Amino acid sequence: MTRDRLYLYDTTLRDGQQTQGVQFSTAEKIRIAAALDALGLDYIEGGWPGANPTDSAFFEEVPRTRATMTAFGMTKRAGRSAENDDVLAAVANAGTPAVCIVGKTHDYHVTRALGVSLEENLESIRASVAHLAALGREPLFDAEHFFDGYKSDPAYALDCLRAALEAGARWIVLCDTNGGTLPHEIGQIVQEVIAQAVPGDHLGIHTHNDTENAVAGSLAAVDAGARQIQGTLNGLGERCGNASLTSLIPTLLLKPHYADRFETGIDRAALQDLTRISRMLDDILNRVPVRQMAYVGASAFAHKAGLHASAILKDPSTYEHIDPGAVGNRRVVPMSNQAGQSNLRRRLSEMGLEVEKGDPALARILDRVKARETDGYSYDTAQASFEILAREELGRLPEFFEVKRYRVSVERRKNKYNRMVSLSEAVVVVKVDGVKKLSVSESMDAEGNDRGPVNALSKALAKDLGRYQAVIDDMRLVDFKVRITQGGTEAVTRVTIDSEDGQGRRWATVGVSANIVDASFEALLDAVRWKLVRDWEG
Amino acid sequence: MTRDRLYLYDTTLRDGQQTQGVQFSTAEKIRIAAALDALGLDYIEGGWPGANPTDSAFFEEVPRTRATMTAFGMTKRAGRSAENDDVLAAVANAGTPAVCIVGKTHDYHVTRALGVSLEENLESIRASVAHLAALGREPLFDAEHFFDGYKSDPAYALDCLRAALEAGARWIVLCDTNGGTLPHEIGQIVQEVIAQAVPGDHLGIHTHNDTENAVAGSLAAVDAGARQIQGTLNGLGERCGNASLTSLIPTLLLKPHYADRFETGIDRAALQDLTRISRMLDDILNRVPVRQMAYVGASAFAHKAGLHASAILKDPSTYEHIDPGAVGNRRVVPMSNQAGQSNLRRRLSEMGLEVEKGDPALARILDRVKARETDGYSYDTAQASFEILAREELGRLPEFFEVKRYRVSVERRKNKYNRMVSLSEAVVVVKVDGVKKLSVSESMDAEGNDRGPVNALSKALAKDLGRYQAVIDDMRLVDFKVRITQGGTEAVTRVTIDSEDGQGRRWATVGVSANIVDASFEALLDAVRWKLVRDWEG
Repeated sequence: MTRDRLYLYDTTLRDGQQTQGVQFSTAEKIRIAAALDALGLDYIEGGWPGANPTDSAFFEEVPRTRATMTAFGMTKRAGRSAENDDVLAAVANAGTPAVCIVGKTHDYHVTRALGVSLEENLESIRASVAHLAALGREPLFDAEHFFDGYKSDPAYALDCLRAALEAGARWIVLCDTNGGTLPHEIGQIVQEVIAQAVPGDHLGIHTHNDTENAVAGSLAAVDAGARQIQGTLNGLGERCGNASLTSLIPTLLLKPHYADRFETGIDRAALQDLTRISRMLDDILNRVPVRQMAYVGASAFAHKAGLHASAILKDPSTYEHIDPGAVGNRRVVPMSNQAGQSNLRRRLSEMGLEVEKGDPALARILDRVKARETDGYSYDTAQASFEILAREELGRLPEFFEVKRYRVSVERRKNKYNRMVSLSEAVVVVKVDGVKKLSVSESMDAEGNDRGPVNALSKALAKDLGRYQAVIDDMRLVDFKVRITQGGTEAVTRVTIDSEDGQGRRWATVGVSANIVDASFEALLDAVRWKLVRDWEG
Repeated sequence: MTRDRLYLYDTTLRDGQQTQGVQFSTAEKIRIAAALDALGLDYIEGGWPGANPTDSAFFEEVPRTRATMTAFGMTKRAGRSAENDDVLAAVANAGTPAVCIVGKTHDYHVTRALGVSLEENLESIRASVAHLAALGREPLFDAEHFFDGYKSDPAYALDCLRAALEAGARWIVLCDTNGGTLPHEIGQIVQEVIAQAVPGDHLGIHTHNDTENAVAGSLAAVDAGARQIQGTLNGLGERCGNASLTSLIPTLLLKPHYADRFETGIDRAALQDLTRISRMLDDILNRVPVRQMAYVGASAFAHKAGLHASAILKDPSTYEHIDPGAVGNRRVVPMSNQAGQSNLRRRLSEMGLEVEKGDPALARILDRVKARETDGYSYDTAQASFEILAREELGRLPEFFEVKRYRVSVERRKNKYNRMVSLSEAVVVVKVDGVKKLSVSESMDAEGNDRGPVNALSKALAKDLGRYQAVIDDMRLVDFKVRITQGGTEAVTRVTIDSEDGQGRRWATVGVSANIVDASFEALLDAVRWKLVRDWEG
């Protein structure tokens, strides 16, 4: 069966940069472009040459890509020729194989925002597209506010599209600029456009997520005949973002309704890189990845409900619409107060703890997890603390050492240069093999900044554990999260700590107390004990 | 024109609790239920009585609501009568006016996951619904895996729905349990169900966001004739979440395609509370609100692109699909431009600070806010800290006192009864009217529990401020939130503190540091200074 070619156009580097708080450097743009290219996108829109220094610099050292590198700009202004418009010239001079120019198609915007006549606007579209075609570039016309324009004056909106097409535009992209058009309207209007003005294989769709329908709007346009989709990684973009390619790509490749009909530039092997690329982008932006993102989120295949979790054990397809591995993601079955005994046995087995069916310790573990969750603990993410709890109930936790007492202080005062500075200091007293050991640490980092009391406690606890010390020397605290929650009737503090070791393991532990220092210490202690369980071969 | 009634069913407290990392306390459930009720939801699903202690406790003190309070459970198990099924009994005993029970409709799941015959499953559905109806409850039947089931064996899936309907179910809810069904399929299957088995005004839709189409799937079902939508606030829910009512409600009320045809229990006045309710939920969960959320996100009406921002000044409708005020949200334009300064002047004026147009302090305030937000501060909620900052730049903040130094310690050790106990102690040294004052406090509460170092610091700071002391005596710390965030290139701690006084005022302040104690102290200090600005009449 022959499948239609469906083209994917990425605008992460241009429209994605309109996200509040996002500002790529040129080096970051180059890194993202390489990832997009490896994934197999057809077009990469690199930015607007001339609009800002970063975009201009990017086009000066524009990377070679298999994808068609595209510069973005706008139609020439009225009252001057395409040849003499400096904004258009900057875009053309970027030397990319394709150029996408935005222009007006909504009568109201032409007369009100641009302040030119409807005919002058048609002339701008025609002349700008023809100019780019004459320069040998592949021209794309981005029809701004098209859907609102079509509703206001369909004849004029279609005339704008025809002007671009006849002047040589390879693609006419229907843009729902303010994001307000619903999927059923997009589908209907795309059908009408194809019937009256632009063939589907010259038609693209560009949606925004203002009603949380950007993905659905793109799919509706494809179902109606459009053959190019514009979007961004992780749905970056102005306001609520653009259509997320991270959601669209797996749907197009994995759902038979699309996969049977369309071919894209992305193959199933590249698709397995999608989760990694999504996380890489968040990493570049220093954003916490959204756990609930479709397909690639850390929670996308997390099964918390007891009913679901036990069914998953029998057959993953019961509660998973795709195999998580297809997009490079993985299944998570977290502990929670709704998990049953079979789920629990499987979890324990994964930790190397085989427990017979019906072992009374199973019920004790579930009861204790339940009681602790009522106190404010959460084991969904703190798997290592869960393991410590389970080992205690199973009698499989060696008492490596005992904490006798600890003390931590923070002092803030003026230093000799008359600047206010802080210093945190912690003392931890443990008993190891019958010997009492006192350790003291402070929390200064390499730059001379105080990292606070938890940092000091962590150092003191891990400073001298006698014969166990060598095992924990490669541990370090990599993340620390605090949440005020309800424990019984009082507000308590829940601290979750992520630790890492030299073998690349990462594990999370939790502590709860009205006192944030005590909650932190509890989580630190679990982290050390988990590491000793793993690596101590006494 | 008569409009159809469209019912909205909220499952934030049940399915929303399946979100990884979410664990509501009973008190939080009660608070959320009150907000949902005020908004005007038709049904509030409170949880699964008997499934866990929190849900059971919630139904023991279940709040009176205008909305129909609903308990969730499952159909009776095969081989016992509805009367003798303890799980069903726990749900029925919760005494709610409505009960929603989940049951299988997918042949494969019946035989494989339940391990019972197809006829036994039909009997379970029939008997369970009839039992609830006989008890005088409004029964809802949640058809698990319906869309997959319908694709696998349409006749059997429809038989399940008919069994529930004939046994007295008020609503049959089609559930896309694994979230894999696309909107066009949902629309088509809903049409077929209405034609063959269940009238639209008895039909509900329950979607999940695994392909980022949960909202679109719900709308497709309504367009096909379903008249109940189930969803959650902020799209909470297992894996990628449920259909977001926060996105659906404004679309249903503000978009003519729906608003002209349907009436819901929510009016335009209540809709203006939507943003506040969305933020309140994140606040309860101590989650960072997603800026890009449709309608209610902090970026939903943020205009960053230069072209857009200037057009917005001419006419907001050019780049906004709705008026942000309709959902209680607001427009954000870049701080640097003219609109930034006029917004700022209005904000200051609301605080009683009249500033002349063009005052150079305005630009300084904007610059400092920007720089501090880069460092990790957030003034969205911490209005009192914003006022302190503005007063400093305007030269309108008296220096009531100076903090010379402070010290806080936490010590944990065994008491005389051999129990581990903690004690926090703080010393704060201030200079008031040229006189140095040393204050020391510990943080024991009435029950003898240690409340931690911030509590001790707060007491010591507010213990002796000389002639100012009387003014701050009625202050108390009522909430304390901690978030790890990014400041420059390092992770820092942001602490937000809510304070209250005897006059019923409540104000929030913020502090940021790598050291949690320093961040807390900064917020405490702002809180005291704000109170003195308000009430000191020296």
